Amino acid sequence: MRILVLNGPNLNMLGTREPDKYGEQSLQDIENFLKEEAAKLEVEIDFAQSNIEGELVDKIQQAKGNYDGIVMNPAAYTHTSVAIRDALLAVNVPTVEIHLSNIHKREEFRKISLTAPACIGQITGFGANSYKLGLIALVDYLKK
Amino acid sequence: MRILVLNGPNLNMLGTREPDKYGEQSLQDIENFLKEEAAKLEVEIDFAQSNIEGELVDKIQQAKGNYDGIVMNPAAYTHTSVAIRDALLAVNVPTVEIHLSNIHKREEFRKISLTAPACIGQITGFGANSYKLGLIALVDYLKK
Amino acid sequence: MRILVLNGPNLNMLGTREPDKYGEQSLQDIENFLKEEAAKLEVEIDFAQSNIEGELVDKIQQAKGNYDGIVMNPAAYTHTSVAIRDALLAVNVPTVEIHLSNIHKREEFRKISLTAPACIGQITGFGANSYKLGLIALVDYLKK
Amino acid sequence: MRILVLNGPNLNMLGTREPDKYGEQSLQDIENFLKEEAAKLEVEIDFAQSNIEGELVDKIQQAKGNYDGIVMNPAAYTHTSVAIRDALLAVNVPTVEIHLSNIHKREEFRKISLTAPACIGQITGFGANSYKLGLIALVDYLKK
Amino acid sequence: MRILVLNGPNLNMLGTREPDKYGEQSLQDIENFLKEEAAKLEVEIDFAQSNIEGELVDKIQQAKGNYDGIVMNPAAYTHTSVAIRDALLAVNVPTVEIHLSNIHKREEFRKISLTAPACIGQITGFGANSYKLGLIALVDYLKK
Amino acid sequence: MRILVLNGPNLNMLGTREPDKYGEQSLQDIENFLKEEAAKLEVEIDFAQSNIEGELVDKIQQAKGNYDGIVMNPAAYTHTSVAIRDALLAVNVPTVEIHLSNIHKREEFRKISLTAPACIGQITGFGANSYKLGLIALVDYLKK
Amino acid sequence: MRILVLNGPNLNMLGTREPDKYGEQSLQDIENFLKEEAAKLEVEIDFAQSNIEGELVDKIQQAKGNYDGIVMNPAAYTHTSVAIRDALLAVNVPTVEIHLSNIHKREEFRKISLTAPACIGQITGFGANSYKLGLIALVDYLKK
Amino acid sequence: MRILVLNGPNLNMLGTREPDKYGEQSLQDIENFLKEEAAKLEVEIDFAQSNIEGELVDKIQQAKGNYDGIVMNPAAYTHTSVAIRDALLAVNVPTVEIHLSNIHKREEFRKISLTAPACIGQITGFGANSYKLGLIALVDYLKK
Amino acid sequence: MRILVLNGPNLNMLGTREPDKYGEQSLQDIENFLKEEAAKLEVEIDFAQSNIEGELVDKIQQAKGNYDGIVMNPAAYTHTSVAIRDALLAVNVPTVEIHLSNIHKREEFRKISLTAPACIGQITGFGANSYKLGLIALVDYLKK
Amino acid sequence: MRILVLNGPNLNMLGTREPDKYGEQSLQDIENFLKEEAAKLEVEIDFAQSNIEGELVDKIQQAKGNYDGIVMNPAAYTHTSVAIRDALLAVNVPTVEIHLSNIHKREEFRKISLTAPACIGQITGFGANSYKLGLIALVDYLKK
Amino acid sequence: MRILVLNGPNLNMLGTREPDKYGEQSLQDIENFLKEEAAKLEVEIDFAQSNIEGELVDKIQQAKGNYDGIVMNPAAYTHTSVAIRDALLAVNVPTVEIHLSNIHKREEFRKISLTAPACIGQITGFGANSYKLGLIALVDYLKK
Amino acid sequence: MRILVLNGPNLNMLGTREPDKYGEQSLQDIENFLKEEAAKLEVEIDFAQSNIEGELVDKIQQAKGNYDGIVMNPAAYTHTSVAIRDALLAVNVPTVEIHLSNIHKREEFRKISLTAPACIGQITGFGANSYKLGLIALVDYLKK
Repeated sequence: MRILVLNGPNLNMLGTREPDKYGEQSLQDIENFLKEEAAKLEVEIDFAQSNIEGELVDKIQQAKGNYDGIVMNPAAYTHTSVAIRDALLAVNVPTVEIHLSNIHKREEFRKISLTAPACIGQITGFGANSYKLGLIALVDYLKK
Repeated sequence: MRILVLNGPNLNMLGTREPDKYGEQSLQDIENFLKEEAAKLEVEIDFAQSNIEGELVDKIQQAKGNYDGIVMNPAAYTHTSVAIRDALLAVNVPTVEIHLSNIHKREEFRKISLTAPACIGQITGFGANSYKLGLIALVDYLKK
Repeated sequence: MRILVLNGPNLNMLGTREPDKYGEQSLQDIENFLKEEAAKLEVEIDFAQSNIEGELVDKIQQAKGNYDGIVMNPAAYTHTSVAIRDALLAVNVPTVEIHLSNIHKREEFRKISLTAPACIGQITGFGANSYKLGLIALVDYLKK
Repeated sequence: MRILVLNGPNLNMLGTREPDKYGEQSLQDIENFLKEEAAKLEVEIDFAQSNIEGELVDKIQQAKGNYDGIVMNPAAYTHTSVAIRDALLAVNVPTVEIHLSNIHKREEFRKISLTAPACIGQITGFGANSYKLGLIALVDYLKK
Repeated sequence: MRILVLNGPNLNMLGTREPDKYGEQSLQDIENFLKEEAAKLEVEIDFAQSNIEGELVDKIQQAKGNYDGIVMNPAAYTHTSVAIRDALLAVNVPTVEIHLSNIHKREEFRKISLTAPACIGQITGFGANSYKLGLIALVDYLKK
Repeated sequence: MRILVLNGPNLNMLGTREPDKYGEQSLQDIENFLKEEAAKLEVEIDFAQSNIEGELVDKIQQAKGNYDGIVMNPAAYTHTSVAIRDALLAVNVPTVEIHLSNIHKREEFRKISLTAPACIGQITGFGANSYKLGLIALVDYLKK
Repeated sequence: MRILVLNGPNLNMLGTREPDKYGEQSLQDIENFLKEEAAKLEVEIDFAQSNIEGELVDKIQQAKGNYDGIVMNPAAYTHTSVAIRDALLAVNVPTVEIHLSNIHKREEFRKISLTAPACIGQITGFGANSYKLGLIALVDYLKK
Repeated sequence: MRILVLNGPNLNMLGTREPDKYGEQSLQDIENFLKEEAAKLEVEIDFAQSNIEGELVDKIQQAKGNYDGIVMNPAAYTHTSVAIRDALLAVNVPTVEIHLSNIHKREEFRKISLTAPACIGQITGFGANSYKLGLIALVDYLKK
Repeated sequence: MRILVLNGPNLNMLGTREPDKYGEQSLQDIENFLKEEAAKLEVEIDFAQSNIEGELVDKIQQAKGNYDGIVMNPAAYTHTSVAIRDALLAVNVPTVEIHLSNIHKREEFRKISLTAPACIGQITGFGANSYKLGLIALVDYLKK
Repeated sequence: MRILVLNGPNLNMLGTREPDKYGEQSLQDIENFLKEEAAKLEVEIDFAQSNIEGELVDKIQQAKGNYDGIVMNPAAYTHTSVAIRDALLAVNVPTVEIHLSNIHKREEFRKISLTAPACIGQITGFGANSYKLGLIALVDYLKK
Repeated sequence: MRILVLNGPNLNMLGTREPDKYGEQSLQDIENFLKEEAAKLEVEIDFAQSNIEGELVDKIQQAKGNYDGIVMNPAAYTHTSVAIRDALLAVNVPTVEIHLSNIHKREEFRKISLTAPACIGQITGFGANSYKLGLIALVDYLKK
Repeated sequence: MRILVLNGPNLNMLGTREPDKYGEQSLQDIENFLKEEAAKLEVEIDFAQSNIEGELVDKIQQAKGNYDGIVMNPAAYTHTSVAIRDALLAVNVPTVEIHLSNIHKREEFRKISLTAPACIGQITGFGANSYKLGLIALVDYLKK
């Protein structure tokens, strides 16, 4: 079982970026942590990140046939990208949306996700642990 | 570590209630399944359910001092209850909000949660597995 | 054929409550009047009333298997209760929503019903006669 | 006692028009069915239909002095016609608004009725039976 | 100088229609009154009325070349008719919009006029006198 | 019969102020023109103008007992002043609201008048002639 | 193959009506031009126009069985007519909606079409050529 | 003179609940403090509290005939309960609505009160002192 | 302890102004009544009133250093004045906002107060007694 | 005459992407089909596609001087891209906007196009045929 | 070259007014600082301030012919004054709008400026330096 | 002191792009002009431009540690990019937002900036001079 962990804009800045909101771990720290979890779950994971909406669309399209599922943190594009929503619907690869911070505690415009309706479900607010929970959720889903 | 699993209105109907949306497991099935997961995580869980908003408020208040955290599926009250939101803020017991169905795929009024801003985070869309994910999320949170 | 006539908050105050809006008959008067109509239609009816949203949810759940249909006046909860809407969808017992006053002549917030989309239909504005009309509507529906 | 049964646009297409929403009876079928009900109630009824908003206004105006009441299905004009609303207020002939389908289960714009506030009440969702219920409601109202 | 006085739906009911809002004069009374005013102003006037939106559109189109200006009371269609607005823009005959009652004192939806932006101006609230004021306004405008 | 003609902010700039919208006559020109009309109507008029909302409130209050009616052009305060609305309701002196330009042809925020519901009616769009029409409207109203 | 070309209000004024928005061709010019195009496509077309909403509903209803499809320019009724929308759904004759001007460049209220969701598609902004494009679109659709 | 002091959800948690918003006094402290004030005013007071919306409705209904007035802090139900509003209108017992915190300084949804229009008035923002002020306001009102 | 009692527009008209809404006491009557209350509370009060928004701003600014607190009835400016809100924030003198009528029972636009978020709290609906209650509230606040 | 056919995000997935909405032809199929049409019209066409909003902006900018017009399917960016709108306005190359599915039949957010006001017109709902229609529309436009 | 620096309500309180938002300099400090800048730019400046909306309107009117341009900080009136907007349009004296704090970081209602559309441009967020930047902007503009 | 001048989409088209809105200078002209200003201010500037949202995010991220501040014209992305907003918050490099045209004079959607709340302030409406003003504003800010 192969899983793509796809990260949206500014997540490459984790650790230094508003640590009170997003935690002090870098994206590399999270990748390392998640690889351990993946090993326990006996799945392979690949990490990808881009600041460019259209590149995230590209990566979702390329996931078709190459990955069994996606754990995706679309970050800022969660709230503005119809293109990512359409890409998810186009490829139909099972996807779990995750967020580090609790989007329901923040600005009004962060409460609505354009991408979540194209996903299995959404996990929001558990910091780096959201990635682990998303991975478990996806693997459990794929096993059914 | 003791955890309260608190269920809102109509969840006592699970299994027979709109199974295409909520799955075919009864609340008792979920309780059994979750107790196994709790055992693996070495925590104790208690299950409670009520159809009455104010009784859910009562149970949240009583959780203070008796439980280390709450996994809560507020169901229909998610979208209408300021009282549950206020109860969570009043007791300050760490709480994870979960939903069986993906609230972002349903009626517009189900996308906004009045209670989630008073929780650590929210997990939505994984059927009965949302409970397991909520339990893991809460235990990981409490261990930190 | 057994029918539950379910009454929401403040309907126990009928007769004394804003008689210009709701008429001068008490709920007991309406029950007596409706029992006569039920006799003509050769159906049995039971009356229930509660001021508590969750108890109305309980009664709807208990109607499953015990009643062939429900004539329901959800009163104030018409406009605020997702829980009653979900209960109706959960039990799938045919239900007719009725109102004493014409909700389209009143405050803006009374024009939208959260519960009516989970019912066969809605009858509004005929005073105590709304109950009789609801009963006929339900019995005709069940006979088809 | 003489009653006008007034039908708005596209109701002349009943039977062939979206039968899953509006039923398989033609308007003539409904007229026949309603005439039988009228006979039981010992009232006379006349049927009229027009696709033209202003002709419906004409017919409402002409009802004054010629009919004791109106059972009206304004169909599409329910949601767009201030002119019909004003006509009802101008003639002050008791009117019951009816709908075949449950307007609360359909598009958002069908939930609000511009005409219902000028009527005694509204009956919505019982198919052809809405006409019968409307007739009973009106006759009971007029007898009081 | 020839002026068309064009009246929208339900104005043929004046005198009997909600006299507290619209006054006790019939449309014929207003026509007589206005003919006297027209004589003083040395203009000819023709009166027309229709309950049908499209007929009002017809009459506006026919005014082109036959009348120097229009005094129009679009009544209910003020708030719903893009067709009348477009007709006025199409013929470009100077038009004054008038209303018997003060539209700013009534329901919210009566405050916005779709037709007034296609007119010279609007006069609202002076009962039958609105017609006289509209006539003076139009004649003064045409003389300039 | 004594009439106050009350002018709101920036009307003292008439003639030089956006002449395409407001015409080329100065407020003094309008006063002279209106005095002639007043003479024909055999009424006395006084002109007042202020740029200060509260001074307009003062003048409305002082009109009570000193004037039989007010012709008022509240200009910009039309759309923002609850204080002028309340002053009109407090003194209950019959008032006609007028505007030089057609407020229905301009920015969205100019379509709604906070003050018109406290007036007999509103005349909008006839340039300086709006004053004359307002005066006639008021005098006719007072004579009844 | 027979096609009805149905035209809404004020299109009979084309050529003289706001030529900067709608072009200088009369409806007769367009009919002549379109007949040539129809000849090339080997289909028969009939032209109809009405200013009356309900007559357009009539014509749509009569198209059933008499025409294979409709090219419709509903003009002003595009934005206000639920009745035309319902007529299209009732007859289920394939229809292409067209507009002369680009409705996305005009007033806000012209951007939303009540009728387009009941059509195959919409073509907007190409002047008289919109008719030709609509005809091609419809013929291609019917051939499939 | 007998007064009911009625308290809504979570007020039983006062003292420990968000003390920066609601103060450090427990509900018992407030009761003791208010009893002293009641003694000065020579009125009797009873304290009641419930977390259940319908029980608050019950208590308001029972106040009829048993109490001369109500000082009510509906807490979270202020913003969501049509049922409590209807109960107040049904019993018509003079009621003063109070709040500990200033609802105008908090979340947008707390600014609108569904219950205040059914009360004499509202007092908001003075901590425990709001109860005393509410009591004085009610007693003064009842004495008039 | 010195208190400024500051009154907004049209309050100088009290007694004659819409007595059904605002009572029959003049502002002088209220001042006399309040001076007695002040004497009991052993504080000095000064009364001020202006119809001019900016003068109310001036008076609030001058209160700084001269008064210990303000009881303010901003009247119409409650709903439109950012300037008064900013003045209160600028001087930081403890202020209680009061209203004679219950603003929650009136027009929609009167429910929102721009000034209340800059005050300790708000008291609304008790007629002249609102002033007394405001004074007690302020004195109690200042003593703490 | 040279035409650029520009395709937005996810259109490279055509054929496999939600075929019930977008048809079963691949973008290559459409290109082949359109090249035949172009040959008939005696114009040259180039196809381009990108998932990246800014690359679409680049291509529009580069069209200036290289192409006589653009047929553009902006796909998801239709509803979110001010940048593409601005690019079209910046280069002023005649552009026809097309959509495969009928955007008026889909989610609310797809009804409004940010890009269409910068185009000649829009064609929506005819599947692959929308491209052909767009090409004809553009060529006819350029020939005038 | 003569420039008027016009200041709206509460700016006379600078230095003591919410210094975290508006800085610690008094308006006199800013005047002194700006006079030095004016000297460098070889222009004369006059400072004016008023808390009264209508006086600001007066000063703008008086600027015509006396000043070459205005640097204006309308403060609270930015968001509520149509009168100042109209005054700017009436006099047509080039004006630069400035704000001390960044209005985009504050309450929602402060993001929209009614006055900025009547100015050359707006500078917001640089504290006292906004005045200097506004002066440079205006002088550069006037020199062109 | 090193400053990055970052330009968003379509700014590379300046000079030819809608010159009435954006002026006739090319971006190279502005760069030359700004380099002279930078020399006077004794700071170094680098110019960058991209049409791709994510590349702008990249450049903002790279500014961290390499530049002391940013003068940014986000152009179309001002109104749609949460990603740029988040990038600014992530790097925390002082940034001044500028616009060539006055965004308050244009379409409604251009009045709100998603990026300005993450900047020191905003300068809008001064053409190429906005860049110079932005540079001065930033340098003054950095010197403090």
